[in-house]
Amino acid sequence: MPLTIALAQINPTVGDIPGNLELHRRTLAQVGDQAEVVIFPEGALPGYPAQDLLFEKAFLKDLQEGLEILAGEVGDHWVITGTVRRERGRLFNTAAVLHDGRIVTWRDKTLLPTYDVFDEARYFTPAENIEPVHINPSTGEPVRIGLHICEDLWDRAYETKVCDILGEQGVDLFINISASPFRVDRDPRRRDLIVEKARLWGKPYLYCNLVGGQDELVFDGRSLVCDESGELICTGAAFEEDLIYVPFPLDTATRLCPQEADYAGQAATTPTRVEELNGAIVLGIRDYFRKTGHREAVVGLSGGVDSSVTAGLAVQALGRERVIGIAMPAIYSSSQSEADARIVAQNLGIRFEMLSIESLRREMQDALEPFFRDTEPGVAEENLQARIRMTLLMAVANKRGALLLTTGNKTEVALGYATLYGDMAGGLAPIGDVSKSDVYRLARHINEREGREVIPPTVLEKTPSAELAPGQVDPFDYDVVSPLVDELVLNRASDEELTAKGYDPTLIAEIRALIVKAEYKRWQAAPSIRVTGKAFGVGRRCPIVNRYRG
Amino acid sequence: MPLTIALAQINPTVGDIPGNLELHRRTLAQVGDQAEVVIFPEGALPGYPAQDLLFEKAFLKDLQEGLEILAGEVGDHWVITGTVRRERGRLFNTAAVLHDGRIVTWRDKTLLPTYDVFDEARYFTPAENIEPVHINPSTGEPVRIGLHICEDLWDRAYETKVCDILGEQGVDLFINISASPFRVDRDPRRRDLIVEKARLWGKPYLYCNLVGGQDELVFDGRSLVCDESGELICTGAAFEEDLIYVPFPLDTATRLCPQEADYAGQAATTPTRVEELNGAIVLGIRDYFRKTGHREAVVGLSGGVDSSVTAGLAVQALGRERVIGIAMPAIYSSSQSEADARIVAQNLGIRFEMLSIESLRREMQDALEPFFRDTEPGVAEENLQARIRMTLLMAVANKRGALLLTTGNKTEVALGYATLYGDMAGGLAPIGDVSKSDVYRLARHINEREGREVIPPTVLEKTPSAELAPGQVDPFDYDVVSPLVDELVLNRASDEELTAKGYDPTLIAEIRALIVKAEYKRWQAAPSIRVTGKAFGVGRRCPIVNRYRG
Repeated sequence: MPLTIALAQINPTVGDIPGNLELHRRTLAQVGDQAEVVIFPEGALPGYPAQDLLFEKAFLKDLQEGLEILAGEVGDHWVITGTVRRERGRLFNTAAVLHDGRIVTWRDKTLLPTYDVFDEARYFTPAENIEPVHINPSTGEPVRIGLHICEDLWDRAYETKVCDILGEQGVDLFINISASPFRVDRDPRRRDLIVEKARLWGKPYLYCNLVGGQDELVFDGRSLVCDESGELICTGAAFEEDLIYVPFPLDTATRLCPQEADYAGQAATTPTRVEELNGAIVLGIRDYFRKTGHREAVVGLSGGVDSSVTAGLAVQALGRERVIGIAMPAIYSSSQSEADARIVAQNLGIRFEMLSIESLRREMQDALEPFFRDTEPGVAEENLQARIRMTLLMAVANKRGALLLTTGNKTEVALGYATLYGDMAGGLAPIGDVSKSDVYRLARHINEREGREVIPPTVLEKTPSAELAPGQVDPFDYDVVSPLVDELVLNRASDEELTAKGYDPTLIAEIRALIVKAEYKRWQAAPSIRVTGKAFGVGRRCPIVNRYRG
Repeated sequence: MPLTIALAQINPTVGDIPGNLELHRRTLAQVGDQAEVVIFPEGALPGYPAQDLLFEKAFLKDLQEGLEILAGEVGDHWVITGTVRRERGRLFNTAAVLHDGRIVTWRDKTLLPTYDVFDEARYFTPAENIEPVHINPSTGEPVRIGLHICEDLWDRAYETKVCDILGEQGVDLFINISASPFRVDRDPRRRDLIVEKARLWGKPYLYCNLVGGQDELVFDGRSLVCDESGELICTGAAFEEDLIYVPFPLDTATRLCPQEADYAGQAATTPTRVEELNGAIVLGIRDYFRKTGHREAVVGLSGGVDSSVTAGLAVQALGRERVIGIAMPAIYSSSQSEADARIVAQNLGIRFEMLSIESLRREMQDALEPFFRDTEPGVAEENLQARIRMTLLMAVANKRGALLLTTGNKTEVALGYATLYGDMAGGLAPIGDVSKSDVYRLARHINEREGREVIPPTVLEKTPSAELAPGQVDPFDYDVVSPLVDELVLNRASDEELTAKGYDPTLIAEIRALIVKAEYKRWQAAPSIRVTGKAFGVGRRCPIVNRYRG
């Protein structure tokens, strides 16, 4: 009789040990006797990344107690789950093996990433031993598992090759538990690596990834099963929980995926780039609200593409009855913008209110007479309007216990073309890691999903403008500047590379300088949902005081 | 003839390679033939910490060119300076040894801190060899220098003991170049460690530390010279640049310090705790303004102790003609508060304006009628006032190209007793790492420094209040809560430890929960000047989505 292994792609919450324990419990009950081995992702018990919570001794104690409770409940199952353990004052990011009421053993993570959003050297000590786990299923031979954790797979930049060390000792299969955050276009690289390891050692490779939103990060799930010949035979759902049963030895004639739609060969399962963006952001919004206990979102609707897309994504995440759109015209707002804001709200079916800020704007300027008299209107007057709008939006959010969504995109946040404590305000920035070009793609995608023009052509075709001064339009040609910003932020392109691609050297210097200069605004920016390889936020650490201009 | 070594405690700026090069040049010109060896701190050429600037290839190239220019200018001097070098795709935090037009050799940092504010594993590879540097002065024997960098001294938590490895190979003296950030009460620990190393190996120990403000960090200087018997014979100035000449072999009969006031035995040089706080914050403000190119500070004066102390520190840092105080009374402001704000401004000699927000407050509430009608007044109405004030303060700052200072203290930022985009707004939070109790100490210290009641007794004795609602006072007994917050944040005290100290268990749970709940506000807080071992900001990384409540 073959052994069955279940990959449980769950969505835990950081710090919620009882809740995460319950997710394990619920999964084990669901699995019942359909599988003897049940695998949970990296950090499944504490949530990932738990960050400085790991310095709280009480948290570590509660975590250990939670694990012991779970061990007491696994019965005949062999359970492998991600947690953190403390030994002689050191912490290990670890996979605990539970069976028959006991914590049987641990396998610690060896490769600790310290790049981008990762700070694992801040918390963890690398594994001191790398060896397979032997488990004894109720029938058949013992199984030697090459158990390792997340980065241990991504070994190209490291001297220690964890899979090779495991493989050389003899394993029957590899199991990797991960908390691998989403970024667009990353999934194929993951698959390639897994296929490579399976082929190299001629053993099946099972990959169980976390799913869910956590602050800026979205974990995308998409667990994988690869057979010993390197063929991918199953993938977990993207952006939702899933449970995959894997017979061992693998019967490669069988399609294992629970929903046929999820897997019909590798090519068919790969969502388009814009589908990935949409899916990641919607999960990011939904989990941020659910896990922080918010129900309702407030969005300032300007009639522009950014706020329209933000509202559209919020409706997908929360439902239309939990999103409120507010337009706040002032003297420089066009009547088209007012109309567009209203149409978008109507098309989305959300509550819509219009609050005029014009008399507030005038009164603010009067109040500032001791400082404004005899000066030319400029950025101070423009920012006033953005900050009055923020004050109204936050008042609505505070009054209703709702959360304000920030509508800024990555391109404008890069350039500092946004008002701090104005349109930059909000609890979460859904499109803060989406370039202006991708915002338009998302807008068209939202219309395609709905099969109608939710975001009307007038919004998609108008010249972008903050409408804070007479005749103002955004001082950037986004067709050029949006990809240029991505080259600079995402690819850290050099001037030579950029001029070779045809960018104007003066423009490159100007945009570089704007990005550096806006660092102080981003320091105080809302968390934005990370969807690229280099988002603003915890994964990009630049000084404010910085005189380097390239 | 004895060799003379100069310790140049300089204040570089991150990213400013030409400017930092000029600091080296100026120092070498000043030293002239008074010393043959000149030591600069860790990171003296790039500035420290350069953070993700180190991922810019152009920056590394410019840095290397800067070092080569410097090497070309050192002439007969032996110069040791802190920089970053790249070798086969890896970065090293390094001490370059320059002489006679050449980069003679490098000594890389071995111990790379990853705790608190430090991310060195993100950037650097540890030294691959640990060995002394041999230099050949123009007269006398070659000198074997146990050259190492900052954390290499603080070896207790590490397996590798850099000083011991150097000492065992035979050295004539130790030299440590550091960028060791200030925190209150740290200097004695530094001294103890240095004395311990000097005694253990019976060799002099020269410690050259960076000085200056960089974003949240303040480097305090206070370089040290310790003789072979472990006696401290000189210390550099605190919070300012300094240049110390050290004869080698050491003549311990001589007091080396340039200003006698700086050193008259260890006890006498130790400033009081409140003097340290004052000195660090003033340098932090001054350098933030200077290095970001701001001249003028705007401070909202409420008549309370926090804004009074912030203004007092700003005047010390910038001069009274570069600070503007603005009071913004509303209906719930007491006439005493208005009077106190005015008196503090008068006593400090700064420009003072009063802008009433009362009619703006009423008009905002009217504008919000669709959302406010039939609701009870609460936090939404309170926050309105704080955000109107922010809007006015930022308008003044934007109009004048000035920088708004945030006036919040660490205790209220911990508790979330502050309005996001309201009183939390500003470019820099001078007292954001100062507890409420210490704010009162600073207030009294400011009065003592001036020899008069700059901050009047009415400010020091009134019950703290945000004055945002009728009869409102801060809902905390700060005499209890301020030290409790420090126990929780700074010492990570357990419930057991706190109840043993007499804290009420209900209060502990309540304060713990408030601290966790306010994480989302702190995510968007202004950088605050770090003066303790655990400040909010880059050194404390806590999730917003976090269900753990202890």
